[in-house]
Amino acid sequence: MFSVTVRDHIMIAHSFRGEVFGPAQRLHGATFLVDATFRRQDLDDDNIVVDIGLAAQELGATVSALNFRNLDDEPDFKGINTSTEFLARVIADRLAERVHDGVLGEAARGLTGISVTLHESHVAWASYERGL
Amino acid sequence: MFSVTVRDHIMIAHSFRGEVFGPAQRLHGATFLVDATFRRQDLDDDNIVVDIGLAAQELGATVSALNFRNLDDEPDFKGINTSTEFLARVIADRLAERVHDGVLGEAARGLTGISVTLHESHVAWASYERGL
Amino acid sequence: MFSVTVRDHIMIAHSFRGEVFGPAQRLHGATFLVDATFRRQDLDDDNIVVDIGLAAQELGATVSALNFRNLDDEPDFKGINTSTEFLARVIADRLAERVHDGVLGEAARGLTGISVTLHESHVAWASYERGL
Amino acid sequence: MFSVTVRDHIMIAHSFRGEVFGPAQRLHGATFLVDATFRRQDLDDDNIVVDIGLAAQELGATVSALNFRNLDDEPDFKGINTSTEFLARVIADRLAERVHDGVLGEAARGLTGISVTLHESHVAWASYERGL
Amino acid sequence: MFSVTVRDHIMIAHSFRGEVFGPAQRLHGATFLVDATFRRQDLDDDNIVVDIGLAAQELGATVSALNFRNLDDEPDFKGINTSTEFLARVIADRLAERVHDGVLGEAARGLTGISVTLHESHVAWASYERGL
Amino acid sequence: MFSVTVRDHIMIAHSFRGEVFGPAQRLHGATFLVDATFRRQDLDDDNIVVDIGLAAQELGATVSALNFRNLDDEPDFKGINTSTEFLARVIADRLAERVHDGVLGEAARGLTGISVTLHESHVAWASYERGL
Repeated sequence: MFSVTVRDHIMIAHSFRGEVFGPAQRLHGATFLVDATFRRQDLDDDNIVVDIGLAAQELGATVSALNFRNLDDEPDFKGINTSTEFLARVIADRLAERVHDGVLGEAARGLTGISVTLHESHVAWASYERGL
Repeated sequence: MFSVTVRDHIMIAHSFRGEVFGPAQRLHGATFLVDATFRRQDLDDDNIVVDIGLAAQELGATVSALNFRNLDDEPDFKGINTSTEFLARVIADRLAERVHDGVLGEAARGLTGISVTLHESHVAWASYERGL
Repeated sequence: MFSVTVRDHIMIAHSFRGEVFGPAQRLHGATFLVDATFRRQDLDDDNIVVDIGLAAQELGATVSALNFRNLDDEPDFKGINTSTEFLARVIADRLAERVHDGVLGEAARGLTGISVTLHESHVAWASYERGL
Repeated sequence: MFSVTVRDHIMIAHSFRGEVFGPAQRLHGATFLVDATFRRQDLDDDNIVVDIGLAAQELGATVSALNFRNLDDEPDFKGINTSTEFLARVIADRLAERVHDGVLGEAARGLTGISVTLHESHVAWASYERGL
Repeated sequence: MFSVTVRDHIMIAHSFRGEVFGPAQRLHGATFLVDATFRRQDLDDDNIVVDIGLAAQELGATVSALNFRNLDDEPDFKGINTSTEFLARVIADRLAERVHDGVLGEAARGLTGISVTLHESHVAWASYERGL
Repeated sequence: MFSVTVRDHIMIAHSFRGEVFGPAQRLHGATFLVDATFRRQDLDDDNIVVDIGLAAQELGATVSALNFRNLDDEPDFKGINTSTEFLARVIADRLAERVHDGVLGEAARGLTGISVTLHESHVAWASYERGL
């Protein structure tokens, strides 16, 4: 089993609803380092998992739609706690769509899974893993 | 599949028995960065894997029982090589007990697995992974 | 010349005013890793620069006054661009006050300088350095 | 499930063939941080996954055969795109051979898997995972 | 004293001449993480050291002229050992030119110094520091 | 001004005397990442600050004299608190001796300073800087 990972980052504001979040119920923010991992069983004809340049570019396009925003104001997230683990799934699902749409190239159709890890600090991170 | 990870650290002394350990048979020590990962299939009603504040607090409580100690003198580890991989299991098992005891909250009963990674330096680390 | 550094972090929201900031004029946020460095010429009677436990505790107290907040709403920062470099000075100055107030211990009066570095991501950080 | 990981690095030159590689078709180079992970179900009689000293030594021997070289000139890689993911497999396979040859010790025969991750930069890495 | 740092990276091939370099006399390569630090005494009217977006963009433009190349073939480096420390100076000098040319904005004329650090691996790096 | 840094590490046990150290008065231990920086004004005839291979080798020899030991038992440190900052000076001074003895090569006599940073964890480190 092979995988390739590329890293990008976003800087967002948001707040949480629910006592469990304590002071994070206040409007605050985060820098999320975003690691997107693409998996496949065998390498393609170019001897790679995925065009790493395209992968970085499409991860960049995916996260830039969230970057420098207050997630509380985004229609997609109305009434939703945009926790680190939830955002990992949002980004993984959006990358999966791009793979299915052929944006990562024809060879990328051989990918079998995607996982996304968001680091919210040097001491906390969350991941979501899914098939393709 | 979702996961959340929190990091803490401990500074301990210990020694090993067995020729395989070479100079590490002498009394020495280590800083272990301790990464505890909690896994579950779906997010809970707050849209999270686990209350990350509680997770960090309980990891802190778990590792502080080992911190600033000579593990050779701990009754729990009498005659045992406290290798990095062994300590990863000790911490994972103690965290699992806390989950079962409800210390990480009722929602945490939905967790399906725990893994613990101990970094003994920038060039060596060990992990233990278990179900819940 | 000796120094000791301790690390903490904060998660804040803010926005900037001025064309130079581009999309960062929108309300967004950041996780700042905060590294506080204490300098002195010679070690004290305990053979240290500063009580590292106290230093970490006082850095924690200093940054927790900023943590989980929207800096645009803080009276101290009214009409001010809370850039990474500006916040580095704010934290350094507040730590300097604590040193002068004796909160870091009598021996800490031998400190000659403080510098603070804020990492806003894995690819950008800013520092402020001052005397004591 | 237990694992132990050791890190080393190599500095190599190479070029790629195929439009997908863009400017990386030119002769260039990379520092690869090489993380080799050894897995097993239970600890051995010394309470370890593998002799970490031997593991580091054998990883060092394995990667030094590639170090400070132009991979385009290596007979083993004639006409092959030495992508990060491909090199991860090469190193994993060579380590697997060493395990089978008993170089990592008799106890290492209890290992069940190896994975190798190569970091080509702070924002891109690739892995290969296999059984033993 | 304030500073702001931005990070980028390049992947190059090169070789060295001189017995001191041992196996690095062979054609090999490196990924260099490139950290460029801009210093000034006081913040500008926008409360910053330098437009961090422009700084990142100009560092990117500066290093892309070296990226994915065999430095042995570059006319600028004919007969020169392109050591990590030498390349740090090359990049610092080229950034200084851009500051003097006004490419980093009018306010950037208040900068007093630049330093550049190149990380050739997780265990070795080199820096060059100069005035403006 | 140029500098080159190499990293190594040690794993030691020790204890401290003095109420300021709290629980660290008990026998415990640490992994110290050791970064040794060598400075000079101009590059030597090989276009380098110092032979980085020799620098790494001599740092390795210097720290191996401390590695896998209980510092409380070392005659050199009898009755001394082996704090992180103190050990930074010990290693810097021992490296300076090696430079003066010519072990780092004749060209290394052009070095003007050494600094040593010891990281005791991901959230605390200490440095010592001296001339040559």
